[in-house]
Amino acid sequence: MIHFRNDYSMGAHPAVLEALCRTNDELTIGYGCDEHCESASETIRELCDCPGAAVHFFTGGTQVNKTAIGAFLRSYEAVIAPEAGHICVHESGAVEQDGHKVIHCPAPDGKLTPAILRSVCAGHTGEHMVAPKLVYISNTTEVGTVYSRGELQALREVCNELNLFLYCDGARLGCAMDAGDTAFEDYGAFCDAFTIGGTKNGLLFGEALVIVRPGLQRGFRHNMKQQGAILAKGRLLGVQFTAVLEGGLYLELAAHANRLGQKLAAGLKALGIPLSVDSPSNQIFPILPEAVISALTEDFTFETQGPAGEGRTCVRLVTSWRSSEEDVDAVLARLGELL
Amino acid sequence: MIHFRNDYSMGAHPAVLEALCRTNDELTIGYGCDEHCESASETIRELCDCPGAAVHFFTGGTQVNKTAIGAFLRSYEAVIAPEAGHICVHESGAVEQDGHKVIHCPAPDGKLTPAILRSVCAGHTGEHMVAPKLVYISNTTEVGTVYSRGELQALREVCNELNLFLYCDGARLGCAMDAGDTAFEDYGAFCDAFTIGGTKNGLLFGEALVIVRPGLQRGFRHNMKQQGAILAKGRLLGVQFTAVLEGGLYLELAAHANRLGQKLAAGLKALGIPLSVDSPSNQIFPILPEAVISALTEDFTFETQGPAGEGRTCVRLVTSWRSSEEDVDAVLARLGELL
Amino acid sequence: MIHFRNDYSMGAHPAVLEALCRTNDELTIGYGCDEHCESASETIRELCDCPGAAVHFFTGGTQVNKTAIGAFLRSYEAVIAPEAGHICVHESGAVEQDGHKVIHCPAPDGKLTPAILRSVCAGHTGEHMVAPKLVYISNTTEVGTVYSRGELQALREVCNELNLFLYCDGARLGCAMDAGDTAFEDYGAFCDAFTIGGTKNGLLFGEALVIVRPGLQRGFRHNMKQQGAILAKGRLLGVQFTAVLEGGLYLELAAHANRLGQKLAAGLKALGIPLSVDSPSNQIFPILPEAVISALTEDFTFETQGPAGEGRTCVRLVTSWRSSEEDVDAVLARLGELL
Amino acid sequence: MIHFRNDYSMGAHPAVLEALCRTNDELTIGYGCDEHCESASETIRELCDCPGAAVHFFTGGTQVNKTAIGAFLRSYEAVIAPEAGHICVHESGAVEQDGHKVIHCPAPDGKLTPAILRSVCAGHTGEHMVAPKLVYISNTTEVGTVYSRGELQALREVCNELNLFLYCDGARLGCAMDAGDTAFEDYGAFCDAFTIGGTKNGLLFGEALVIVRPGLQRGFRHNMKQQGAILAKGRLLGVQFTAVLEGGLYLELAAHANRLGQKLAAGLKALGIPLSVDSPSNQIFPILPEAVISALTEDFTFETQGPAGEGRTCVRLVTSWRSSEEDVDAVLARLGELL
Repeated sequence: MIHFRNDYSMGAHPAVLEALCRTNDELTIGYGCDEHCESASETIRELCDCPGAAVHFFTGGTQVNKTAIGAFLRSYEAVIAPEAGHICVHESGAVEQDGHKVIHCPAPDGKLTPAILRSVCAGHTGEHMVAPKLVYISNTTEVGTVYSRGELQALREVCNELNLFLYCDGARLGCAMDAGDTAFEDYGAFCDAFTIGGTKNGLLFGEALVIVRPGLQRGFRHNMKQQGAILAKGRLLGVQFTAVLEGGLYLELAAHANRLGQKLAAGLKALGIPLSVDSPSNQIFPILPEAVISALTEDFTFETQGPAGEGRTCVRLVTSWRSSEEDVDAVLARLGELL
Repeated sequence: MIHFRNDYSMGAHPAVLEALCRTNDELTIGYGCDEHCESASETIRELCDCPGAAVHFFTGGTQVNKTAIGAFLRSYEAVIAPEAGHICVHESGAVEQDGHKVIHCPAPDGKLTPAILRSVCAGHTGEHMVAPKLVYISNTTEVGTVYSRGELQALREVCNELNLFLYCDGARLGCAMDAGDTAFEDYGAFCDAFTIGGTKNGLLFGEALVIVRPGLQRGFRHNMKQQGAILAKGRLLGVQFTAVLEGGLYLELAAHANRLGQKLAAGLKALGIPLSVDSPSNQIFPILPEAVISALTEDFTFETQGPAGEGRTCVRLVTSWRSSEEDVDAVLARLGELL
Repeated sequence: MIHFRNDYSMGAHPAVLEALCRTNDELTIGYGCDEHCESASETIRELCDCPGAAVHFFTGGTQVNKTAIGAFLRSYEAVIAPEAGHICVHESGAVEQDGHKVIHCPAPDGKLTPAILRSVCAGHTGEHMVAPKLVYISNTTEVGTVYSRGELQALREVCNELNLFLYCDGARLGCAMDAGDTAFEDYGAFCDAFTIGGTKNGLLFGEALVIVRPGLQRGFRHNMKQQGAILAKGRLLGVQFTAVLEGGLYLELAAHANRLGQKLAAGLKALGIPLSVDSPSNQIFPILPEAVISALTEDFTFETQGPAGEGRTCVRLVTSWRSSEEDVDAVLARLGELL
Repeated sequence: MIHFRNDYSMGAHPAVLEALCRTNDELTIGYGCDEHCESASETIRELCDCPGAAVHFFTGGTQVNKTAIGAFLRSYEAVIAPEAGHICVHESGAVEQDGHKVIHCPAPDGKLTPAILRSVCAGHTGEHMVAPKLVYISNTTEVGTVYSRGELQALREVCNELNLFLYCDGARLGCAMDAGDTAFEDYGAFCDAFTIGGTKNGLLFGEALVIVRPGLQRGFRHNMKQQGAILAKGRLLGVQFTAVLEGGLYLELAAHANRLGQKLAAGLKALGIPLSVDSPSNQIFPILPEAVISALTEDFTFETQGPAGEGRTCVRLVTSWRSSEEDVDAVLARLGELL
């Protein structure tokens, strides 16, 4: 089987695994207070040009979204998110479990805009309604699209105007930076908090949360502990992030995933296969006849997204740092035969 | 000022006030375990033809919705509600505060249908998503429309099929029964739980919750207490409900409100004023030019709903058991002058 | 039956009922934004000498404790309370339901001391433990004892030192002021927030929350709405509080209850009956043989507290504004016969 | 520095690390649905003689305790735990954050008894109090003591009698089985749910939850996801547990830790050093003069527990699978010099 199911079902990049093995005999203090975590935090602060940021490490994306949002908001404050947002649909109500409404906003390309934020805030008045307070975006989005630097800045400005927090879920931040024009320091400049995803980009597991806004930093490790989100052997997270962030491996891996994703997209278009969204990153969404999908599953793994009309279905093909040119060639060749 | 703002800004119906005064000197056991509450519960069980139902009394609608939904669901189970549903917008995230996602469904007339429920359930699969479990409807709806007996029965059937609970917010249940073809026993037959609203229909305050489904009755007073929803002098609720339910005052008051609401609607139509929804009950939604609205506020109270295009705005005029023929005549006359 | 069961199972004082009847025909804006609530709030601010305080009205004690504590604390912040505290045992985990640990402190007389607070704070260090933040006291306490002005001041000082909030549950605040040396303005001076209980002192229902500390006032009505704690016809609360607070009825009723409570205590002592706690207010806790208790229940209502050794049981006799000299004489006479 | 700080600050056992490296290139389905997790689950079901048990893997102890307890209980149901219980003090109110009161029971040796459970249940009556429902024990306890098979059985019987769930936190289950007379199958027989701790016994991270009682198994992966407790690359947990459970390494490592712990305890006794608790496992609690402690910290890491009177302090020395005979000899020798 050739794997396009997702970008998180493989092991670690060899450099990450090597770092884990190399440090395995160390005896460190627990709970992320060790030197590896401190060093990785400092690296992140430097990359993001945020000397005052607080950096915390988590084992997974739902965990970090839930803990951060729960910590940042008062109970009646709500999240504004695009309908496709990971917290809206794929985290089993994790944000709501901690008491917060998530306001779903239609957004065909998966991206929020200043106009959407203004409209939501204008529609929420008084104590009988929740108070919108945190803007949740993902970059890349769940449909592979990317916020540009200008778009991030525009969201920042409207957040200032409306007194909102801007939170960016960076589960695929490397791909977003490679596919667009943003760099680490833009997230430090425009977001109140954001994550740097490791799970989908070379680590065994790990998401780094960067809390830029000083007022959101207080007591945060209490929130983490209360959520069961402090790893006893926290060292593991510092070691892994250091392995990919020092030396630039993080962006290299994302660039590889994106390059193959775009090669795949170009090949699909050349075959005349429509794409449900024009994604510049590593998630590609072709629309295929059911019979083709059925035949394709014999040799390739991927997820189906839903019906796309005329008996066709939208599927998702994901490339990763582990994908190869041959993987892409193979799926395109097979599709050529099937169509 | 003539009052069309809502149906809950007046005092109690004289018969209710009289009952409170008459029983004021009694010394009863607290927390709703007194004879007045027991008697009112028994009356409700008889009216609804539900000998096995549990009946509990609350001081307000948000309180009862929140307590019931929180008690009935596991934390990952979600509510399906029409976008206009009271819990979606006007309860400040009360249901989410207790951990449950509310899935908002577009429904222009404020009503859920079997097709909507099937679609929501089909779209929620696996543990990465919440599990839809409770269907929230209001009768009358927040836009004044009414579920018929046949519609309730159809929802019941699809709930059985999809293993969902059916909960009806009856804040204006009297108006729903008067304007449609349902009776108390239909709610007992088709709902797993429902409320009988008193606050908007003659009481100082009070909503009765009827839990029909035996499996949802267990431990419920614990939930009430934990929510701060057990009134110390619970007698007050039993006394008031008895005053309106024994002898039929409850339906008489609702019929009066509806009759004046329909008189108002007919008058508005005769004046050529469009209505945003065709409501058969006591909430009427004319669309008026801004200048007319502005002039109207000098003598009448009412709420605005939102822009309706072409510089016009939708407003809500509500009639109640306290409204008079003269109130309706006056507003129609004034509108005639203004248009 | 002669009633010593509690101080909240009777109706309203005639002056309160009269005020409710007198204002029943008024049409007011809802949700506690009416003139009666504004006027009662202003009266409370003046009585407490707190021009900047926010005042909110609730229908019950658990509701106000839960809403206030939930609003004031971050999720990992905890409450320090005496073991006998109402929130520790008799509110079905309402504070925990909103996510906060309540640290139970042994305190035989029901009262917290600076030494207890220092000890709790010293024992809670770092993010693996909750962070104690709010001190919950009741005045009078649940065992009838009373904090003096000096004791309140000492708690205030240690709260300043330890960066804690001081919250006083004043369900029986009238009795506390009458039995001790505190006045309304002392609560305004020493507490961050406190309640003035109406349910146990002449009202049909009602607790006023006074939020003194400006930092705790923000967004509070959102919290109330989310908890289902805003009464639609909020006017009822303003009217009732005005009836007892303007003119001094509130303290008169409490003084009556205390005077009869102390008459009862003196009579019990004269009969040689031991009291489990030396209460200067309206709750009296005699220790009686089982046989006496059994006989007493034929003519008197009261609650049992628990075994007191040697086959005896501690019971609670409560006097209220509704109790009479004759009630006290009767129970003492009967006890004289039984012993 | 020689390490006695705890049993979770080292890397993985070589066999575990080797297994992770060996399987790193595999492409598996995510979220713990892979063959490694299925195989490890099956191994656990066989070891525990529980063919019907559900097995789930977590990254940490607070996470599993919080998720399990939150899933098993209705909101008003409470946990009974010994005062020293990990959830009482060292999880930052994680259980309370999900809405449940934890009833702290004094227990000098860290162990609950049937008498304690009966007393707690007898003291909780009616809806004004929480309903005790889940019994939380740890084996070994937080003070190193161990429940015997007979004690477990006795707790099971009283839980049946009182309709309580029995939950065992097995963060150090290997040490408990080695130091006492219990085996895996006893937990399967007597507990409704329990954990098998990996973090403290050879793994990089990992706790296995075994849900024995069928009624507690429903929908549990929803709870996990909602808590952010499903690891994307869940394979890592299956691989690690398989490495220690197949072949018996799990018990060997625990036996090593216990043997060195007991050697340490014997040595301390021989030096005349009092122990605050008589622990038969790998956590040893000597009481030492401050000056000795101060000198000891130059070469050894360990935690202090608190003052023990007469200017002395109780400290905790922990041995693990990584500790050596030489480590123990060294600390005893140094203590011999210092005393």
